[in-house]
Amino acid sequence: MVTDSQLPAGNQIEELRVSDDVPVQALQLRSLVTDTATVSLSLELVDVPVPGPDEVVVRVAAAPINPSDLGLLLAGADLAKVTVGGTADRPVVTAPLPPAAARAAAARVGESLPAGNEGAGTVVRAGSSEAAQQLLGKTVAVAGGGMYAQYRLADAAVCLVLPDGVGAAAGASAFVNPMTVLGMVETMRAEGHSAIVHTAAASNLGQMLNRVCIEDGIPLVSIVRSAEQVRLLTGQGAEHVLDATTGTFMADLTAALKATSATIAFDAIGGGQLASRILTCMEAALSGDEPFSRYGSATHKQVYIYGGLDRSPTELTRGYGMAWGVSGWLLTPFLRKAGPATFAAMRQRVAAGITTTFATSYAGQLSLQAALQPDAVAAYARMATGSKYLITPNGPAE
Amino acid sequence: MVTDSQLPAGNQIEELRVSDDVPVQALQLRSLVTDTATVSLSLELVDVPVPGPDEVVVRVAAAPINPSDLGLLLAGADLAKVTVGGTADRPVVTAPLPPAAARAAAARVGESLPAGNEGAGTVVRAGSSEAAQQLLGKTVAVAGGGMYAQYRLADAAVCLVLPDGVGAAAGASAFVNPMTVLGMVETMRAEGHSAIVHTAAASNLGQMLNRVCIEDGIPLVSIVRSAEQVRLLTGQGAEHVLDATTGTFMADLTAALKATSATIAFDAIGGGQLASRILTCMEAALSGDEPFSRYGSATHKQVYIYGGLDRSPTELTRGYGMAWGVSGWLLTPFLRKAGPATFAAMRQRVAAGITTTFATSYAGQLSLQAALQPDAVAAYARMATGSKYLITPNGPAE
Repeated sequence: MVTDSQLPAGNQIEELRVSDDVPVQALQLRSLVTDTATVSLSLELVDVPVPGPDEVVVRVAAAPINPSDLGLLLAGADLAKVTVGGTADRPVVTAPLPPAAARAAAARVGESLPAGNEGAGTVVRAGSSEAAQQLLGKTVAVAGGGMYAQYRLADAAVCLVLPDGVGAAAGASAFVNPMTVLGMVETMRAEGHSAIVHTAAASNLGQMLNRVCIEDGIPLVSIVRSAEQVRLLTGQGAEHVLDATTGTFMADLTAALKATSATIAFDAIGGGQLASRILTCMEAALSGDEPFSRYGSATHKQVYIYGGLDRSPTELTRGYGMAWGVSGWLLTPFLRKAGPATFAAMRQRVAAGITTTFATSYAGQLSLQAALQPDAVAAYARMATGSKYLITPNGPAE
Repeated sequence: MVTDSQLPAGNQIEELRVSDDVPVQALQLRSLVTDTATVSLSLELVDVPVPGPDEVVVRVAAAPINPSDLGLLLAGADLAKVTVGGTADRPVVTAPLPPAAARAAAARVGESLPAGNEGAGTVVRAGSSEAAQQLLGKTVAVAGGGMYAQYRLADAAVCLVLPDGVGAAAGASAFVNPMTVLGMVETMRAEGHSAIVHTAAASNLGQMLNRVCIEDGIPLVSIVRSAEQVRLLTGQGAEHVLDATTGTFMADLTAALKATSATIAFDAIGGGQLASRILTCMEAALSGDEPFSRYGSATHKQVYIYGGLDRSPTELTRGYGMAWGVSGWLLTPFLRKAGPATFAAMRQRVAAGITTTFATSYAGQLSLQAALQPDAVAAYARMATGSKYLITPNGPAE
């Protein structure tokens, strides 16, 4: 909310509008769930905000579509039934919600929501404070939602200035995946583990975690779903990569867990038996090292579910004693708990390695209009390895 | 292991044997899983131990059969196929293990294991230390396994002297259920919750938790499986008792969770969807109090599974955001983490209330021989409300 006292007086506003080449209104992507159980994606013309003293306006050049964006964007809609309407400039994509998705989305019915967790662009307007003024003209990465828009207001304090020579496309994914990867490593350390298991490990995030673990000397067990993905990660220096679709998976996983002593896993799949299988193999890897107890090994075994690629229920067979846990894991509460010093250190590490360790690769760029076409929706909603897209609201980005 | 230096010299042993009316050998119940996938319960004649300086020998008067004893005792055997052999004095009960139970018991094949987590009796021999000598003739409660025996060696330090006038039968269950109940309350406090959900809540343990929560002013939501059990707990002053078999269970549970703000549950069932339903209702009770987030409420919701009345897999639908956890919970690691001061305070509270707050009721008493009969095995293995038995290895106990 901008208060009167924060507004430039009189014709200063007009002057700004002319001088900085920023339009009065610009497009913002919105997701709306209706009371007839449909979700619509549309482009709304909204006022370009005027920054308060400690705020800036970013002209968004690039914003990735992460799996974590799709829930808000698509609300679990049936994507086999996408239809498109509207105009070429402002298409409207609509899809029906299955009953379970409609129930889950009840709290957001009728509320037109902006989307896009992170992105990068140029600071085109800055508030009066020194912190804000220093950002003028800089290329910055921003997180916090509403990035699928041509312009976005941001606190100066949350802007991460990208290193010289790093463009917005290269810096667009500086938050969600990098901070999640570092958050996993920090969680592992904070909870007294020394190695990590990761599922859906051929993803952009999985490849990044592999690079961080190699840098930090942390043993990593990567679980993937094809021989091709095994080759991909092995080619990037991963030592323990297991294909969950093979007949020897359980034995191979147990051996890898014995070799690495991994007792914490981060699972992007969520549904089915994978989390339970990991706990079973952890327990098998531990047995023999400890005296027999009918309550199982005394070592705590933890699976954190941080994604839901498989929406079916998680099935836990509980054949792994009593020292186990399965929990949801989310970046934001982790960062809150970790505190500002850890957060700042993580951000600096990301900025320094944004084109190397923390680099993201994309399948392509989509304008706001192109993102609202059935084929495009189908492509980015697949959440498959190699299908990550960038939305570029102000034209192609570098 | 008793070393030479700890043994009384020369004929002192003989003298002890005569003077204290303790036999040289006595019966101990054993459970053995064989490599042909059967479990046998038998009575073995073992040497009555000679106590070291800080040890005592307890003539066991009464030891309860808790659900937590049945795993070691029966190893998940198919109880429809129990057979009995041996002699009247020393019967042998045998039952086959289904394949999954046999796999789970692999580590104990061929190892004849004593059983019985807790019990009470009279100290009939004491080592030379003052702590041990002070216990001579006292009625004490002991925990630590192997209590289904006529005599058991114990560290003097672990013996809980029962208050004057409290017999062994009344004090036999002074550890497992009372310490579990207090452990749940301590866990609730340590993890920042203010109310508790409990399942299978009409059990001896559930009734005890109800009494402790009333004493401590802690809101408790008890989940049971029949109208009769609702009446039982309501008659004992419980305010929120819900029958999970009714059609309005989910709505009733949500209302009770809203009224109590309970965000931690202790679940004795384990299998099926109950844990997940509790999380679903906790989330529903929280929604509305917090701003909408597609990641669900920010309040952590925890279910601890401490039993396995239903051995089928735990099914988690995950429709409750990301701030949730399901974990195993076991008394021993909790006590280790809680530390000796908390442990001592808990024990004192139990001793003071052993015939009131922490009283246990039994369906009957079984001699060691009677416990090894098919009908008896079927009765105590039911783990139903009101079917808890005492094993009385030295004749009827008071």
